[in-house]
Amino acid sequence: KPLARRPIETWTKLRASKHARNTVNPIRKIADKMSVAPNPDKFPIKLNLGDPTVMGNLPPSQAAIDAIHEAVDSHKSDGYGLAVGSLAARQAVAEHASVPGAEINPDDVILGSGCSHAIQMSLEAIADPGDNVIVPFPGFPLYTTLCTPHGIETRGYNLRMHDDGLIDLVDLERNIDGRTKAIIINNPSNPTGIVFPKEHLEAILRIADKHRVVIIADEIYGNLTYGETDFIPIASLSPKVPVITCDGIGKRFLVPGWRLGWAIIHDRMGVLTDVREGMIALSQKIVGPCSLVQGALPKILRETPKSYFDHVRSVLKENADICYEAFSQIPYMHPLRPQGAMYLMVRIEEKYLGEETDLVQELIKNESVYCLPGSAFNIPGWIRLVLTYPPEITREACERISRYCTSKLQGDIPSINAYDS
Amino acid sequence: KPLARRPIETWTKLRASKHARNTVNPIRKIADKMSVAPNPDKFPIKLNLGDPTVMGNLPPSQAAIDAIHEAVDSHKSDGYGLAVGSLAARQAVAEHASVPGAEINPDDVILGSGCSHAIQMSLEAIADPGDNVIVPFPGFPLYTTLCTPHGIETRGYNLRMHDDGLIDLVDLERNIDGRTKAIIINNPSNPTGIVFPKEHLEAILRIADKHRVVIIADEIYGNLTYGETDFIPIASLSPKVPVITCDGIGKRFLVPGWRLGWAIIHDRMGVLTDVREGMIALSQKIVGPCSLVQGALPKILRETPKSYFDHVRSVLKENADICYEAFSQIPYMHPLRPQGAMYLMVRIEEKYLGEETDLVQELIKNESVYCLPGSAFNIPGWIRLVLTYPPEITREACERISRYCTSKLQGDIPSINAYDS
Ligand SMILES: Cc1ncc(COP(=O)(O)O)c(C=O)c1O
Ligand SMILES: Cc1ncc(COP(=O)(O)O)c(C=O)c1O
Repeated sequence: KPLARRPIETWTKLRASKHARNTVNPIRKIADKMSVAPNPDKFPIKLNLGDPTVMGNLPPSQAAIDAIHEAVDSHKSDGYGLAVGSLAARQAVAEHASVPGAEINPDDVILGSGCSHAIQMSLEAIADPGDNVIVPFPGFPLYTTLCTPHGIETRGYNLRMHDDGLIDLVDLERNIDGRTKAIIINNPSNPTGIVFPKEHLEAILRIADKHRVVIIADEIYGNLTYGETDFIPIASLSPKVPVITCDGIGKRFLVPGWRLGWAIIHDRMGVLTDVREGMIALSQKIVGPCSLVQGALPKILRETPKSYFDHVRSVLKENADICYEAFSQIPYMHPLRPQGAMYLMVRIEEKYLGEETDLVQELIKNESVYCLPGSAFNIPGWIRLVLTYPPEITREACERISRYCTSKLQGDIPSINAYDS
Repeated sequence: KPLARRPIETWTKLRASKHARNTVNPIRKIADKMSVAPNPDKFPIKLNLGDPTVMGNLPPSQAAIDAIHEAVDSHKSDGYGLAVGSLAARQAVAEHASVPGAEINPDDVILGSGCSHAIQMSLEAIADPGDNVIVPFPGFPLYTTLCTPHGIETRGYNLRMHDDGLIDLVDLERNIDGRTKAIIINNPSNPTGIVFPKEHLEAILRIADKHRVVIIADEIYGNLTYGETDFIPIASLSPKVPVITCDGIGKRFLVPGWRLGWAIIHDRMGVLTDVREGMIALSQKIVGPCSLVQGALPKILRETPKSYFDHVRSVLKENADICYEAFSQIPYMHPLRPQGAMYLMVRIEEKYLGEETDLVQELIKNESVYCLPGSAFNIPGWIRLVLTYPPEITREACERISRYCTSKLQGDIPSINAYDS
């Protein structure tokens, strides 16, 4: 029998649900705290935003633009589609993503509103409250943002940041226990830009196989590489370990706002049959990504020329080289050389340069240069820079940072606290 | 200390999470059960799909089409926006939706991937496991689909289906208890097409105020009315009761696949301050709806002419009249006259015409006419028809149903079970 509702004198403020209160985006929290104004005499350079479209130097491919125009005019993409995505779009993903060792068909593909949504459906379908998922530290904070409200624990494994940026496999394995439902492998990595070589991926797969733990592979930066190590989809290296690969067009095709991603279920021996059904069920909550972008997807995936990606990669490489050179010259700063994704990490010797979050604020205030503090990725003492700006602007940013740090080290500049008083 | 993982001989099938297993879409379940083949000699008429774009007779407005073309070409809508939606888009919604008594500003608006997503964020931000939400029976099943996996109970209140289709207010009030977090009011209603008059809305608000329960108003069919009763946004009728209004462009602008909806937080006396923060947090899980559609939204909302809606309404009215007339003539069928949304409900006297789900399957098998069984909306014994087809096709569908039922009543047609054996 229902509890009688007690009479209430007046409306009182409602609390948000626990689920909502436990949904925390650390990047937003840090950004909120760092609302310092930039130096009005210097144009702002926002190397904090993982959005390659900000400056307009990296527009979508002509194929992508044409594909949307055609989708609108066709009037075949106005209505509801399947919640998992239209067959034509999933077929195109299957073609695009099939590689020897990891051939897939459209039934293995579930579309989502961005790679974020694909990750959300994967995590929500695989883990219960009290289960845990192993995630990279430093790493993309969304994994934890998505797990925590469901009572799914995330446990961080370390990347070897003072060395090659690869996974500390001992630490990875140590985290696994009887409640571990998945290991998230983000390759190429945000925030490090490190690309994992074949042997490293094979070593990860051996651990997963030994403990019978599924891999969720976040490969949104797949193919965005420009160093010696080529990108290899982890699912292609094992016929045994079940892998859910999350990906999308946001980064590689430079249209993050279009919000189209996908999960590919590389099932092995039926291990993921029920999880797949679960993901299909979850996709029905919001009925698939925008139909226009779905309608455009086959053309985008099939007709974007190789030259488009080559250009993007060359811009990333040029910026990476500029930043790596510049930061190698700044005393007490230590860049980690990236080979992929869109970022470069720099370690700060805080003893000399001050706390990472203070330094980031000082750079905004004095130099109008924005970097993202490593704290956002669970690695205080580092900062992350974005490598998608026009190279001359990247160079200008590096010069400003260099000049500022040099002055600061010479004692010419008071610390942030002096400003705030 | 972590539990040691026991050695496992072989990979075993994983169970999907409880959350995923508890995510159930009854429409899909019913559709799966009813996979009978249509009569190959008659072209299929799918009056089961709540998708007005199926036949091409109701295309999007020219403003909407132009707006997408412009958004693609502008290159201002390729990147990430705010997770709650771009300011320009929210500004346009605020202008569009502000009415005397319920003026809003962009901060009151949270965009989502369809009205479905707006409803999801509202429910997830307001209720905890063990809480309950009061929903219409018959009604859109998504409310329960979204609540159940979070352990939020849904309790149905009856619509007076044998009378005027309005809410049985005694039943509504009876369901409220100390754990009730919201009452969902869907007006105009899916599946009934009933539009609630002012006094009825005021009576609902009195109950909500008396028990201090927030209203979630699903007004996705707002303004899609063609009868005597005009649509009134419930939030405009009370300065006291907090209302979260969920809406979108899918139905009114006939682009359900574009997946753009919104929640409007009509806060009163700060009751919803924390819930709003919670919804903002939840919006960050998948970072907002497609940026192209967001970019197009101001033009869509501002420049779609009144004549466009007038035309849609006239098509709905013509179809409603055709169906109402036709079903009034069929023995043992009793249509409920709609005044809005896109649907018409017909009661079946099952004693004479057989069980609703059987009848629906017989109509597919013999007449290639698809209707949706009322069971999908928690009202067995009824069927729902869609009113967006070209009127001549609607008429053809009615004739087929009439012919079939007449034959069946004359004993000319064996029952469905005879077919299946
Ligand atoms: C590692 C990683 N995964 C996933 C995403 C989210 O991608 P999307 O914008 O397609 O949701 C990002 C975005 O920055 C990312 O860095
Ligand atoms: C009452 C009601 N609310 C919400 C929705 C979902 O709308 P959207 O497609 O914008 O998510 C529908 C769709 O049929 C509906 O009937």
